[in-house]
Amino acid sequence: MKQPIGVIDSGVGGLTVASELVRQLPKESIIYLGDTKRCPYGPRPKEEVIQYTWEMVHFLLERDIKMLVIACNTATAFTLDQLREELAIPVVGVIQPGARAAITHSRTAEIGVIGTDGTINSKAYVDTLRQINTDIEVHDLACPRFVPLVEKGIVQGEKAYQVVRETLQPLKQFSNMDTLILGCTHYPMIKALIQEEIGSTVTVISSGEETAREVSTILEYQNKLYQGEQAPQHYFYTTGDVGVFHEIASRWLNQKIDAVDKIELNTVKKA
Amino acid sequence: MKQPIGVIDSGVGGLTVASELVRQLPKESIIYLGDTKRCPYGPRPKEEVIQYTWEMVHFLLERDIKMLVIACNTATAFTLDQLREELAIPVVGVIQPGARAAITHSRTAEIGVIGTDGTINSKAYVDTLRQINTDIEVHDLACPRFVPLVEKGIVQGEKAYQVVRETLQPLKQFSNMDTLILGCTHYPMIKALIQEEIGSTVTVISSGEETAREVSTILEYQNKLYQGEQAPQHYFYTTGDVGVFHEIASRWLNQKIDAVDKIELNTVKKA
Repeated sequence: MKQPIGVIDSGVGGLTVASELVRQLPKESIIYLGDTKRCPYGPRPKEEVIQYTWEMVHFLLERDIKMLVIACNTATAFTLDQLREELAIPVVGVIQPGARAAITHSRTAEIGVIGTDGTINSKAYVDTLRQINTDIEVHDLACPRFVPLVEKGIVQGEKAYQVVRETLQPLKQFSNMDTLILGCTHYPMIKALIQEEIGSTVTVISSGEETAREVSTILEYQNKLYQGEQAPQHYFYTTGDVGVFHEIASRWLNQKIDAVDKIELNTVKKA
Repeated sequence: MKQPIGVIDSGVGGLTVASELVRQLPKESIIYLGDTKRCPYGPRPKEEVIQYTWEMVHFLLERDIKMLVIACNTATAFTLDQLREELAIPVVGVIQPGARAAITHSRTAEIGVIGTDGTINSKAYVDTLRQINTDIEVHDLACPRFVPLVEKGIVQGEKAYQVVRETLQPLKQFSNMDTLILGCTHYPMIKALIQEEIGSTVTVISSGEETAREVSTILEYQNKLYQGEQAPQHYFYTTGDVGVFHEIASRWLNQKIDAVDKIELNTVKKA
């Protein structure tokens, strides 16, 4: 199937997921839509997040995507179930793949989760982990200072490390915790610092990597992987500033981005 | 969904997959069928493997399984596509999950695969890897001495290590290879020795672990995970010696196995 995989996010964070899709599924084409203008979704009311997400979904459905990836933790928490129910194409979110990978890796069944205030307060990771295994002990921690750091491009050096060190302090008491989920799509950009601070005995799970893996699983399972010889084509859309998006996308995807288009999202009915 | 997950294998090897299912999905019930009497499938003609596999499938379908796991590399290579096409329930094999996990983990795109003569000669791993990414370099190696070793229970000590060392010698020249797939369900029992010999810079992928992960992915995606409070019940069936099977199953699953029943498989038509 030559149709592209659609990826939606509240802004640029989901590019870490897109970047893993490009790496793990190099034959597949991607359409990415970041609602940068209305980013972040985290602090918004649930109904608003649902409305904005449906607007993005409608935009991509008109471009004939074969699968939808919700590359945003907040939007996943609020819309995954209804999107799966109402769309005819497969829908994958970012929470379940990270949770499942943590269960696969953990031998102590004591798992850490870090994310934005919104994601941690939603308890979406705790619920997903416990849905699969009621005996899992979860240590979750909101890290509100990480996203601003990454968005400013401060992803290495003493200042970044200091923020990481101070923020992760509460997790260091759990000596039996052997796995830590990066429950925010921005965090892979500072994964090296997080790994250094949390220690080499803890496996750090990047939800982008794991989401791409599960996209591959479901496409193959549904016999929808692209099998032809044509080179992939990627399209990027933003509701915000094209220049800023283009610069971040080129850096994060570590490749030249041909075109980023600015679009307006239409106010649409939910279903 | 309270119905069990069905697991079929040519013998006891698939118990490493069952053991990972029990660990990663502790609420789920499992029915395992090992065709020990006719094991191994590896050297048999393709048509015979297909016929035997269908006999196992019919036995489990009568027991109302909600999903089928082909926990045998040979049977996966020969029957996955047709089983997916003809059964109404989801079907997962052991080859694709290991291949996908290797793609996720590898940064050099140089991947090793070890397995039985049958699996390596079938090129099933090479085909699956290249189907997703044509640029992947694959180094495959048949390790015919490993299964007899594991079946005799020689999984540690100098003798086992010597066999592992001698067998893996041809792979040691590939200094850029950063991931090694254990393409046989017996090999996880000697994973520690393989890891020691191949070195800590190589990620060793166990297909049992990865198959259980993908079973979890697909059950959740299809909304078929068991959500009730009842304890799981596992059933084991063998076409061979009950005592031997019971002893190996208890050891490999690291838990008391209540009952193993001996059954006869009926000769049935393929579809």
